[in-house]
Amino acid sequence: MNSDKLLQQVAFIHEIDKLKYIQRKTRLFNSDRRENDAEHSWHLALMALTLAEHANEPVDTLKVLKMLLIHDLVEIDSGDVFLYDTIINHDNTVAERKAAERIFGLLPEKQAKEFIAIWEEFETGDTPEARFAHSMDRFEPILQNASNQGGTWTEYNVPYDTVIQKTRKIEHGSAVIWDFAEKLIDDGVDKGYIKKTGDL
Amino acid sequence: MNSDKLLQQVAFIHEIDKLKYIQRKTRLFNSDRRENDAEHSWHLALMALTLAEHANEPVDTLKVLKMLLIHDLVEIDSGDVFLYDTIINHDNTVAERKAAERIFGLLPEKQAKEFIAIWEEFETGDTPEARFAHSMDRFEPILQNASNQGGTWTEYNVPYDTVIQKTRKIEHGSAVIWDFAEKLIDDGVDKGYIKKTGDL
Repeated sequence: MNSDKLLQQVAFIHEIDKLKYIQRKTRLFNSDRRENDAEHSWHLALMALTLAEHANEPVDTLKVLKMLLIHDLVEIDSGDVFLYDTIINHDNTVAERKAAERIFGLLPEKQAKEFIAIWEEFETGDTPEARFAHSMDRFEPILQNASNQGGTWTEYNVPYDTVIQKTRKIEHGSAVIWDFAEKLIDDGVDKGYIKKTGDL
Repeated sequence: MNSDKLLQQVAFIHEIDKLKYIQRKTRLFNSDRRENDAEHSWHLALMALTLAEHANEPVDTLKVLKMLLIHDLVEIDSGDVFLYDTIINHDNTVAERKAAERIFGLLPEKQAKEFIAIWEEFETGDTPEARFAHSMDRFEPILQNASNQGGTWTEYNVPYDTVIQKTRKIEHGSAVIWDFAEKLIDDGVDKGYIKKTGDL
């Protein structure tokens, strides 16, 4: 009985290894090597542990970690969607829902439901934990771009208004971190990495 | 005040990015691409979340996740030590302690102490959480080797007795998982991936 469950769990552990092959657009700090989703998920989890005291509201750290560890697993099937993509809507597409059902569906039923519920809570973004987890997800690429002469801002010529529109949700999780992030974005404008509409 | 702390925390977040460059000997599942320490740490954390019910004793999952997320950070300075290395002692070397002090020392003092305490608890291996975290750390490469025609067992010609000696501590964290792991090792012997002393 226990061993049937364990077999299902091991099948899941095998499957999620594929996250290590999903490449993001952003690059490691001071680097031209792209980050993969597994590295990204690890970094966000440790960022959340480090920065939890700056959350606007008290958060259940364990729940935040669960969200961040699993939040990108659906990309094993649906692929990474670039944050600044203006055509594809990143959040909760039909493809991502199907992927969640397939991947978490490898687990024993009760556990699959628990993991899907955590993923949905993250996607919906309606709780203090989800808001703080999203802050981490938006903050990391700002730090990376700031360390890489503008990184994806420059490479994809992302206008200032789009940068602000896509990253402003950091504020909903942590006003302190948003204040810091906004200074990095302003600094990116000053250095010519990000163009305001009038300059484009 | 808050912003001074945040600056220290961001310096730590930058520094730990280097974990993504530390290569392990083991390879991804069904792959010849080596795993790095950041991917490994992410995988162990999610394995712990998935398998916590099989721990011998009830564990504080948050503490286990903290341990697994930070356990390899010292390797940024001291490098990866191969599990089956028979010369270098993996655990708690002077170099690793210096590395812990430097890397966690980037954080605000109180937080640095908390992280070092968690790392020490993992290294000492004396609590239910540390024992279960170590089970994950030993179980992952068994799964990887089993999927890679023996992987590092074959590549480094690791004898059966050494495999058992180095992986048996899984049992201290989870008898159920050790039972499963031992079957994979026996299967590795049957397939000729691992040699018993008489066959060497």
